[in-house]
Amino acid sequence: MEVLRGDFAIPSTTGKLRVIPLGGLGEFGMNMMAYEYGGHLIVVDCGVIFPDAELLGVDVVIPDITFLRESEGRLLAIFLTHGHEDHIGALPYVLDEIDAPVYGTPFTLALVRSKLTEHGLLETSDLRELRAGDPVQAGPFRIEFIHLTHSIIDSGALAITTPAGTVIHSGDFKFDPTPTDRRASDLHTLAKYGAQGVLALFSDSTNVERSGITPSERAVRERLSEVLAESKGRVLVSCFATSLHRMQIFADLAREHGRRLCCIGRSMYQNSEIARQMGRLQIEEGLLVAPQDVRKIPPQQAALLVSGSQGEPMSALARIAVDRHRWVSVQPDDDVVISARIIPGNEKAIFRMMDHLYRRGARVHYDDGSHPPVHVSGHGSQEELRLMLSLLRPKYFVPMHGEYRQLRRHLELANDLAAGTQQAFLLESGDVLEFDEAGARKNGRVPVGRVCIDVGTLDEVGDLILNERRKISVEGIVVPILAINKHTGELEASPEIVSRGFVPLEEAQDLVEKARAMIRETLETSNVEEKGDWGVVKDKIRSTLRRFFDQELGKRPMVLPVILEV
Amino acid sequence: MEVLRGDFAIPSTTGKLRVIPLGGLGEFGMNMMAYEYGGHLIVVDCGVIFPDAELLGVDVVIPDITFLRESEGRLLAIFLTHGHEDHIGALPYVLDEIDAPVYGTPFTLALVRSKLTEHGLLETSDLRELRAGDPVQAGPFRIEFIHLTHSIIDSGALAITTPAGTVIHSGDFKFDPTPTDRRASDLHTLAKYGAQGVLALFSDSTNVERSGITPSERAVRERLSEVLAESKGRVLVSCFATSLHRMQIFADLAREHGRRLCCIGRSMYQNSEIARQMGRLQIEEGLLVAPQDVRKIPPQQAALLVSGSQGEPMSALARIAVDRHRWVSVQPDDDVVISARIIPGNEKAIFRMMDHLYRRGARVHYDDGSHPPVHVSGHGSQEELRLMLSLLRPKYFVPMHGEYRQLRRHLELANDLAAGTQQAFLLESGDVLEFDEAGARKNGRVPVGRVCIDVGTLDEVGDLILNERRKISVEGIVVPILAINKHTGELEASPEIVSRGFVPLEEAQDLVEKARAMIRETLETSNVEEKGDWGVVKDKIRSTLRRFFDQELGKRPMVLPVILEV
Repeated sequence: MEVLRGDFAIPSTTGKLRVIPLGGLGEFGMNMMAYEYGGHLIVVDCGVIFPDAELLGVDVVIPDITFLRESEGRLLAIFLTHGHEDHIGALPYVLDEIDAPVYGTPFTLALVRSKLTEHGLLETSDLRELRAGDPVQAGPFRIEFIHLTHSIIDSGALAITTPAGTVIHSGDFKFDPTPTDRRASDLHTLAKYGAQGVLALFSDSTNVERSGITPSERAVRERLSEVLAESKGRVLVSCFATSLHRMQIFADLAREHGRRLCCIGRSMYQNSEIARQMGRLQIEEGLLVAPQDVRKIPPQQAALLVSGSQGEPMSALARIAVDRHRWVSVQPDDDVVISARIIPGNEKAIFRMMDHLYRRGARVHYDDGSHPPVHVSGHGSQEELRLMLSLLRPKYFVPMHGEYRQLRRHLELANDLAAGTQQAFLLESGDVLEFDEAGARKNGRVPVGRVCIDVGTLDEVGDLILNERRKISVEGIVVPILAINKHTGELEASPEIVSRGFVPLEEAQDLVEKARAMIRETLETSNVEEKGDWGVVKDKIRSTLRRFFDQELGKRPMVLPVILEV
Repeated sequence: MEVLRGDFAIPSTTGKLRVIPLGGLGEFGMNMMAYEYGGHLIVVDCGVIFPDAELLGVDVVIPDITFLRESEGRLLAIFLTHGHEDHIGALPYVLDEIDAPVYGTPFTLALVRSKLTEHGLLETSDLRELRAGDPVQAGPFRIEFIHLTHSIIDSGALAITTPAGTVIHSGDFKFDPTPTDRRASDLHTLAKYGAQGVLALFSDSTNVERSGITPSERAVRERLSEVLAESKGRVLVSCFATSLHRMQIFADLAREHGRRLCCIGRSMYQNSEIARQMGRLQIEEGLLVAPQDVRKIPPQQAALLVSGSQGEPMSALARIAVDRHRWVSVQPDDDVVISARIIPGNEKAIFRMMDHLYRRGARVHYDDGSHPPVHVSGHGSQEELRLMLSLLRPKYFVPMHGEYRQLRRHLELANDLAAGTQQAFLLESGDVLEFDEAGARKNGRVPVGRVCIDVGTLDEVGDLILNERRKISVEGIVVPILAINKHTGELEASPEIVSRGFVPLEEAQDLVEKARAMIRETLETSNVEEKGDWGVVKDKIRSTLRRFFDQELGKRPMVLPVILEV
């Protein structure tokens, strides 16, 4: 067992355990949870959300870490449950500001390493391996990793033991009895904790709306095999580039069907190489074809793993769909399998890509509800959530990873189950839950929120800027410009008016003339005091023109007056 | 039988029938199809699409009607299959330009009337009733309405008989054997045409991805009844305000459960009144409560039909969810049923609204795949599409109403079915299909496309404006302003730089100073010829500043230089 900061003195057992969700409760993504005991903190996960279309020009959203910034020196370590973006994506931004060792399982750390390398942060980072059966002591926290199945390998729950009791943080999970890597969920360790007594369970709510049990990853094998058997051309399978289970299944099937395998797309290629080197993806050397050689393989002998299942515009599959990929194009008789969930918000892009593939004569297989499935979820359904509760029998229960309705339904599910839970709490990000000998209660809030990042520059995109973009994006912008003589206070030239995203003013000279006249009149009717304050003059021009455009055109563009003293 | 333009001379039977899809083939919505024979035209349906988020500031999208404009005087009439927005929504825009009588069934015309009234076009419009069993002769076209079931009443297919043969235009349909209004689909008339011989079928592809048969509208009764029985508070049901079937079921159940009914929201109230007056919605006077009186009814005796199932920001349900409705707020113990499909693109708004309702303590029921369902589709699934083909046995088949993948799958479904179809065509909007004695073939294209409308002004929002908005919405706009002496060609003052949706320049004085220096330098290094052409100077400043912001900040805002001659 590794002991972190060995000089730490265990505080008295009468201390309080505080659990502080910094993201992921009442919202989907950017999972991040702080645990505090005796003045010390650990953080579990550090994820992003991919932004809505309404966040204009924003590439990624990370949690506000004001709380961690203000807790400087108290953070002992960050623990990662697995390597998905909504659990690790914010690490580069957080580690840029906050110094702490990061614990994760081997594949999780491999993904973190390539992410930190891109951000130039690898050398200054302290990454440490987290292994099942080998707990880490961090101050008053003893953290044990418990392997659970999920759509990514090396994923699991954390048992966090403190003097106040043991809390289980589920991570993302399903109970897949037949995972591709034969590493089933560690039910026994869960049961052991359940027998010893669990203070609280924080559990994944993603699939709480689905009844029954999520099918095993193995369920996609049948359909992929069918497609490989029937296709008269190439078979392209697109899945998330972290779905090693899926990639392994397809690699195995390719071999069985006498096809060579090729990984197309940067993330697909990189991750498959990393996983192969780690021995976590079993592909014989002779089976693999380099991307640049895929054209040399006869179509009926080719099987391609392609990134871009969400229709991302620059991804390999999106480029293939419009004949803009260097090495691959789609031909009649080819089969394309979108072996992934259609994430809400991405429908348009995905279906547009599929239409391009269809137009080129390919058959497209996607998650349309038909059986056998081309995709299965990595999150447990209701019966699995019930099994988790039944195994652990926690005294307190808190649903996490979900929007409010999902947390609420998970809460109801737990309350309906007679698993001995004394109380279930519905927390949203920022709500502090406090445990001590007297029980558990919500107690206060910490600052939380969303920080919008422009990946190109790594800059934060503030609310002000977003509001300006939103305003302009709906009605356009009009810039009236006045050159005013600084000595006489008179106009030196006719006011200039330019606009964008608005009625093209070049084609509306009448309108421009009227607007100019109104600007002149506004200036002339201003008294000396008003003229002495350009801010006042600008305000008057702004409101005059806004009223004018509204009356004339029914439009309300942003009006941005500029005064130039000459 | 009504005969339109009786002076029309039937052309020789050797004429060609041309079918010209103006919208709805290869895209979802804005359904519009022209049929041309002997130089005469009819149009079937006239719908809109609701725009993607990427169409900034656009409220509604209608088909480009250049073809109809260029066919002036040749259009005999517009026929409507039913009253949904994707079939009638573009009428006010089309009738504003093009004069033609409009045929529709009574409820369809009632909806059209209220729409045209809003646009001030009712008086100049010529609306005529279309009745099953009472065909209309319009020039060489004989149009018979065939009643079919759908989520809206008074919906059906059109049998269009021409000298070249009979074409069936399906409209939207399902084969519901137990519709609420007891008016089942007219299978016999379909069979009669099938027996006589159908030249071509144009059929709805919306649900081609669903296997089996779409459940009857009646299937929602069980779940709604359960909710009404179990709720200890008020029951709010939100559905489309044109779903008279759904509204009738809920009204009947409200009475059975001893609750009074109230229609909340403008469209829900208006449509229920229209339908009651037409005798198409049976609600006893004593059962109804006026919206302003709903507070006087004890919660357990109240049943509310509320518009806003898609989370539209100004809708009744969205306002109720945030306590901003005049007469209704939600209390703990209330039940809210979203009895509608969650339309892709609306998820965020709908789930956000649901979260607000949950936070106020309401139970929310929605289309989460659980049984019995709270919603069923109005479109037929695969077996119903097969039944349509089997009944009609068309010589030629064309899938319509769907994106490319759906048309393709419908084509495959038809080809797999041994229903005697000689050939199936995959057309997209604009593709002309021609029929004559020699057969059928694609022959040419007509101009089609999307016209973006700003509903506030009824103006078209052009591509240029949309591109400008898109550009600014992602990176913001920077406006450098130069006051130049028209006699000397020299700067009269330091260049001014304003920006919006971009780094706030007020907080970046260094950057502004550097940018100003670059502008001055650009001007100084320009030769006399360049300075004589402000267009050239602007271009140089634009490219200089774009390079500058890209290098300094990694950003590429729109740069809009303005030169003021003083």
